[in-house]
Amino acid sequence: MEVRGIHHLGVAVADLDEAVATYERLFGARVESREMLHDQGVSAASVLVGDDRIELLEPTGDDTPVGRFIANRGPGMHHVAYEVGDVAAVLRELRTAGAELIDEQPRRGLYGMQIAFVHPHAVHGVLTEVVSGG
Amino acid sequence: MEVRGIHHLGVAVADLDEAVATYERLFGARVESREMLHDQGVSAASVLVGDDRIELLEPTGDDTPVGRFIANRGPGMHHVAYEVGDVAAVLRELRTAGAELIDEQPRRGLYGMQIAFVHPHAVHGVLTEVVSGG
Repeated sequence: MEVRGIHHLGVAVADLDEAVATYERLFGARVESREMLHDQGVSAASVLVGDDRIELLEPTGDDTPVGRFIANRGPGMHHVAYEVGDVAAVLRELRTAGAELIDEQPRRGLYGMQIAFVHPHAVHGVLTEVVSGG
Repeated sequence: MEVRGIHHLGVAVADLDEAVATYERLFGARVESREMLHDQGVSAASVLVGDDRIELLEPTGDDTPVGRFIANRGPGMHHVAYEVGDVAAVLRELRTAGAELIDEQPRRGLYGMQIAFVHPHAVHGVLTEVVSGG
């Protein structure tokens, strides 16, 4: 298993502009990119805090995964994403290891990356993403 | 504000040995260190996933901060810690920026580090730690 490290921490927020402003003001964050993904129901901003990346996610509506997350638990940490060389190969290894997957095949994520999600049941309650490219 | 990046992601778990085994098996994690901190009510293991660090935290009892977190929300991501050069200086800057702090002064964390927590109210629901040394 070849995991390079944390690619980003995904954070669910109620107001993207306010959240970006908070990360800039408190932690000197710099906006790397912004993107709206209608099919995933999020408006996203990737901000760099030092050398690392926080992905701020505002739901486009209540009936979206991130919208339901906020309704149930409030804004806060949503997922952690690990950078890997080959998402499809890692999914095969995870399946062999018995991990419950949300995505059986890689799909397109933000910024053109290949992504897949592992079910939080498999990782002690942590929604975990694997990412490559982008 | 001088934030170097993510120092670790703190994760609340019900069983530390099981969680360590899961991170080893699924993500090739290596155990960096383990420590019991009775005054903070946690038994902790620091594991490296690629180049990055996950701090797995098992509460020593139900009536501890991490024990209450798990009782309320279940196991999962608990906090993010940013590495800074000088915790005391960063706390002064955060106070000037109007951020609500949990720790007004640095205190000793795991592995001899200087740490302080910023209230999740100040960071859109994310319990945020600043860390130096260790």
